[in-house]
Amino acid sequence: MNFSSKLIEEAVNAFASLPSIGKKTALRLVLHLINQDKEVTGQFAEAIVKMREHIKHCEICHNISDLAVCEICSDARRDRSVVCVVEGIRDVMAIEDTSQFRGLYHVLGGVISPIEGIGPSDLYIDALMQRIQKGEIKEVIMAISPTIEGDTTIFYLSKKLKDMKVKVSTIARGVSFGGELEYADELTLGRSIVARVPYRINE
Amino acid sequence: MNFSSKLIEEAVNAFASLPSIGKKTALRLVLHLINQDKEVTGQFAEAIVKMREHIKHCEICHNISDLAVCEICSDARRDRSVVCVVEGIRDVMAIEDTSQFRGLYHVLGGVISPIEGIGPSDLYIDALMQRIQKGEIKEVIMAISPTIEGDTTIFYLSKKLKDMKVKVSTIARGVSFGGELEYADELTLGRSIVARVPYRINE
Repeated sequence: MNFSSKLIEEAVNAFASLPSIGKKTALRLVLHLINQDKEVTGQFAEAIVKMREHIKHCEICHNISDLAVCEICSDARRDRSVVCVVEGIRDVMAIEDTSQFRGLYHVLGGVISPIEGIGPSDLYIDALMQRIQKGEIKEVIMAISPTIEGDTTIFYLSKKLKDMKVKVSTIARGVSFGGELEYADELTLGRSIVARVPYRINE
Repeated sequence: MNFSSKLIEEAVNAFASLPSIGKKTALRLVLHLINQDKEVTGQFAEAIVKMREHIKHCEICHNISDLAVCEICSDARRDRSVVCVVEGIRDVMAIEDTSQFRGLYHVLGGVISPIEGIGPSDLYIDALMQRIQKGEIKEVIMAISPTIEGDTTIFYLSKKLKDMKVKVSTIARGVSFGGELEYADELTLGRSIVARVPYRINE
């Protein structure tokens, strides 16, 4: 791409360094900002810099947070006896969006993946063990992606938790709600037949 | 979307205010920046703010420029007798990318569009006339989109240029190179039959 301006070129390269943004999209964003007041760009940049400078990881659950302890961990109305173990921050948001969980979280920061060189010591597993040793937690829910790495992580964690007085569960796996059976992949469909559950009539 | 952090929420909203970026993409971009060094975000923000603060429009052609006169207008090697009239900055870049034009440009800043309330006085048409009156320009190429508004603008400009001693041309219109005839739209195909050109053998 041929820029007649170094300033534009640098701004385009800045946007294009972000994931999923190519040069053409970056240029469209830059030209959009040029057509706005200077303040718009200032506020945009400030929001991002402020976020990056001040964002913290919660001391307890390792979720991202504005304060040393995140909103969820410091919320007195939440059930402190259940902890949902997740891979990352996005999983916390996804589960929060369902409004179906009122316990606390624990963010591992990834899953065990020998191929990528991620071992148990690279994740916040020790921190989870320390939380459980305090005795307040009664149940640990594994909300980890049903992949090989995810299953390895669940297996590793459940072995470590075996001797501790906590109930360990995983989120239900099976065909999606609203999905049509013929489009479900073989593995999911096969396993959901094997793991069939008794039908309950809601009265 | 449920953010456990005000800082994240503001940064996501900043990205999501840009065109073609939704909340999910914005979140992905923000989480990407969180995983990078603080300096990366600083440099990103700086490039954008610097661009917006210092960007100018070229006094001569109204292209965006770092200086009062843009790189193209101040390039002594370019042909000052030919001016290519375009709607916007992106058209300049597109034509520059072809490496087929060595003259100068004139950016109109849009096209005449009564529906959107854009009249000739809203565009840099007077500035174009003043450039031509200086006598150096021999040919004006209309490189304007083949739309109703574009054609209206070309018609308006060519009427204004009729009494001036300049040759007026438009870029060739017809079927795209590499495109298959059966997929060309009716209007383009019909017009390219009407406007057929004598076949020349390159020897």
